[in-house]
Amino acid sequence: MSIYLTLLTDFGTEDGYVGAMKGVLLKGLPDLQILDVSHAIQPFGIKQAAFSLMNYAFYFPPGTVHMVVVDPGVGTRREGLIVQSSGYSFIGPNNGVFSYIYQSPKYQAYQIREGIFGKKVSPTFHGRDIFAPAAVKLLQGDPLTDFCDPFSQLVSFYESYEDLGDDEYRLKVIHVDHFGNLILNFTLKEWESLGSPPDVRIQINHSFLVGIKNTFGDVPVEQVLMTWDSRGFLQIAQNCGNAAQFLNKKEGDHFIMKIFHSSYNE
Amino acid sequence: MSIYLTLLTDFGTEDGYVGAMKGVLLKGLPDLQILDVSHAIQPFGIKQAAFSLMNYAFYFPPGTVHMVVVDPGVGTRREGLIVQSSGYSFIGPNNGVFSYIYQSPKYQAYQIREGIFGKKVSPTFHGRDIFAPAAVKLLQGDPLTDFCDPFSQLVSFYESYEDLGDDEYRLKVIHVDHFGNLILNFTLKEWESLGSPPDVRIQINHSFLVGIKNTFGDVPVEQVLMTWDSRGFLQIAQNCGNAAQFLNKKEGDHFIMKIFHSSYNE
Amino acid sequence: MSIYLTLLTDFGTEDGYVGAMKGVLLKGLPDLQILDVSHAIQPFGIKQAAFSLMNYAFYFPPGTVHMVVVDPGVGTRREGLIVQSSGYSFIGPNNGVFSYIYQSPKYQAYQIREGIFGKKVSPTFHGRDIFAPAAVKLLQGDPLTDFCDPFSQLVSFYESYEDLGDDEYRLKVIHVDHFGNLILNFTLKEWESLGSPPDVRIQINHSFLVGIKNTFGDVPVEQVLMTWDSRGFLQIAQNCGNAAQFLNKKEGDHFIMKIFHSSYNE
Repeated sequence: MSIYLTLLTDFGTEDGYVGAMKGVLLKGLPDLQILDVSHAIQPFGIKQAAFSLMNYAFYFPPGTVHMVVVDPGVGTRREGLIVQSSGYSFIGPNNGVFSYIYQSPKYQAYQIREGIFGKKVSPTFHGRDIFAPAAVKLLQGDPLTDFCDPFSQLVSFYESYEDLGDDEYRLKVIHVDHFGNLILNFTLKEWESLGSPPDVRIQINHSFLVGIKNTFGDVPVEQVLMTWDSRGFLQIAQNCGNAAQFLNKKEGDHFIMKIFHSSYNE
Repeated sequence: MSIYLTLLTDFGTEDGYVGAMKGVLLKGLPDLQILDVSHAIQPFGIKQAAFSLMNYAFYFPPGTVHMVVVDPGVGTRREGLIVQSSGYSFIGPNNGVFSYIYQSPKYQAYQIREGIFGKKVSPTFHGRDIFAPAAVKLLQGDPLTDFCDPFSQLVSFYESYEDLGDDEYRLKVIHVDHFGNLILNFTLKEWESLGSPPDVRIQINHSFLVGIKNTFGDVPVEQVLMTWDSRGFLQIAQNCGNAAQFLNKKEGDHFIMKIFHSSYNE
Repeated sequence: MSIYLTLLTDFGTEDGYVGAMKGVLLKGLPDLQILDVSHAIQPFGIKQAAFSLMNYAFYFPPGTVHMVVVDPGVGTRREGLIVQSSGYSFIGPNNGVFSYIYQSPKYQAYQIREGIFGKKVSPTFHGRDIFAPAAVKLLQGDPLTDFCDPFSQLVSFYESYEDLGDDEYRLKVIHVDHFGNLILNFTLKEWESLGSPPDVRIQINHSFLVGIKNTFGDVPVEQVLMTWDSRGFLQIAQNCGNAAQFLNKKEGDHFIMKIFHSSYNE
C-alpha cells in the first residue's frame, strides 16, 4: 500500500535543506512517496502557507501526511504539532500554519513531546531533526501517545469579514496568488447565507466593480473582474494580467463590498 | 508496471494549486509516479511551454502521460485535448501548447467531452477538475471514446524561418532558456538540407558572428557564439554569460543569417 | 528494493532540460525514485552546489546516487566523475562540485570513460547524454571498470580559515543561504579544537557581535546574531530578517573573528 507525504516550506531548494529532510524521511520509510508541494513560500510566510495548505490538503488520498515547515520561531518554545482531521495528518510548528484546518468541524491536536528525539536536535532545523522523524514514527505506526501529548492552545489567525451595516462589508485580502489574484475572506457559502444577493459590487478607488463573473475570459483581456476562486473564495482578478500589480494591492489590504438584493439594471 | 505522468504548468508552486492536482491524480491512481517538469513557466507562457515540452516528452518511457496546464483561456470555450503520438499521451488545453508535437509525422487528437466531469468543475481550475480526472481515466484504461471525441481544429503556431533570397534568411528567437541562450527556428537538419554550408554568419548590430562552434567553452569566457542546442536548434549563447541580457534580445526578436557555400578564410 | 537518485542542477526547470534527464533515467531504470533537491542553483554556481550537496548527501539511505550537474565547462575537456564515499555515489563534472565530499576520510574517484556513450552525445548537454546514462549503468549494477577508470586529479576548492595570530582569525563567507544567513568556514569542531573559548566575537564595521547564540529567537526580531548552522558551521544571521542584505555581504567576503579564553563580563 502506498503512503504519501507532502512538503510545504519556505526553505527554497538551493541550500539542500529540503534534500536533507527527504533523506531523513526515506531512511526511515523506504517506500514513502514524497510529494513536493512548494518550497517557495515567502520567508516566514505563515499566512501564505496556511492558505496554500487548504488548497490541496483534502484532495490527497486519506492517510496522507502533510508536513508544513514555515517556522520563524524554530528553536524557541513554540510547540511542534501533529494535527489529525478527516483521516489526514498535519505536522508542523504551532504558529498558525494550520489555521484553516481548525475551521474543519473535527480535528485532534497533539504536541510532539519535547526532548523525544534526543540531544542531537539542531536548534535551527527542526524540519530535519524533529518534524521529519515525527512523520517517520507516525507512518511507521507508532502510537501517537508514545511521542505526543494532547494539546489545545493552538495558534490561529483566521479572520472573518466585517459587517459594516447597510449591506456594506469590509473584506480583507487573505492571499495573493502566483497570478496576482487577490483572494478575499468572503466565500460562496457566505454569499448564499446572505440570500445570494444578485448584485455584488466592490469599491476600487472611486468606482465600483460590478457583478461576479464565471471565469477570467468573460471580460476582455486586461479588464479587472470578480470571480469565485477554485475553493469558493471571492477573488479580484485581471484577465491575462496581474490584479495585485495592476491595483497595487497586497495581502492584508481591504476592500469595501456592497450588496443589493435586487438585480442591477444597466 | 510503473506508470508515469509529468506536469508542466505556469502555476508556480506556492499556492498549492499544483498540490491539488497531485492529490487528485494520486487519489485516482495510487501507484502513479508523478514527475515535476516545471511550474515556473511564465504566466500564460504558451510558447515557452510548447518549446519545453518538446525538450523532454520523447525521452520518457513510452506510455508516459504529459500534462501541460498553461491555460489563460480556462473556463471559456477553448477545448481540452488528449493528443497521442509515438506511444505518449498529451493532455492540456487547445491553445498551442502542443504545437511542436504536431510536427511529428503521426498523431491523433481528441477533445475531452464537455460536461463529462459533472457540475462541480471550477471554471477557473480545469487542471484539477478536468485535466487531472481525464489523466486518471486514461491511465485507468478507460476507452478514449468513453470521454473524448476525435478533434482536428488544433491551435498551432510553429513558424519556419524566412528565406530572403541571396543566401540570406530571417530567423526568429523561439525560446530564451534559463541561461539566456537565444534559440532560433533553424535546425541542424535544415542546415543540412541547404547543403551544409561551411560558413554561417549571423548579423549582430553592425558586425557578424561567424561560424557554428561545438560547445560554449570553444570561445573565451564572455564571448558570444553560435552552437547547436541539445535538440538541434541553432542558438546564440555567451560562454559563462547570458546572451539574452548581453544582446538585449527576447523571444520573438529576429536575426539575419547569411550562408556561404565555401569556407571562410580569415 | 527501492533505489534513489537525487538531482541538483543550475538548469532551472522551465526549459524541460531537467525533464529530459528524468526521462532518460526512468527509461533505463523503471523503478527508480527520483528526488529533486534543487534546480535553482545560480547559473554556473559551483560553490553553491558543493555546499548544498554536503547539506543533504549523507542523510539519504546508503546506496543513493547523487547527481550534480552544474557544468559551465560542458563539452570541453573537463572530466565526468563518479565518486564513491560511505556507500553513496556522486556523479557530475570535475570542477569542484564535490569539494566537500573530498573532506570525508575515505572516497574513491573514477573518470567516466570518454566516448563510452557513443557519438550522439550533445556537446552542450552531458547531464542528459553522459551523466544520466552513467547513473543508469551504475544502478543497473554494471561494474564500474566497464565504463570508468580510476582518477585522481580532482578539482577542489575548500579553504580553511586563516589564523592571524593573537587569537584573531580571518573567516570567509562560503555560502549565503535562502534566508540570507552568512555561513562561515569555521566549524563547531574547530572551535572545540581551539579549547572551546567561551567568548567569540566577530567584527562588523566598527563594533563587535558578541557570543554564539543557540537559535535565532534568542535575540529580538531584526537583531543580528551568531549561531551554529544545522551542519555545525558558524553563521551570521538576522532574526526574522536577511543578514546578507542587512549587512550587504556576499559569498567570498571576509570577517575577522576574535576569541577570548575567559568569559566576557558585561
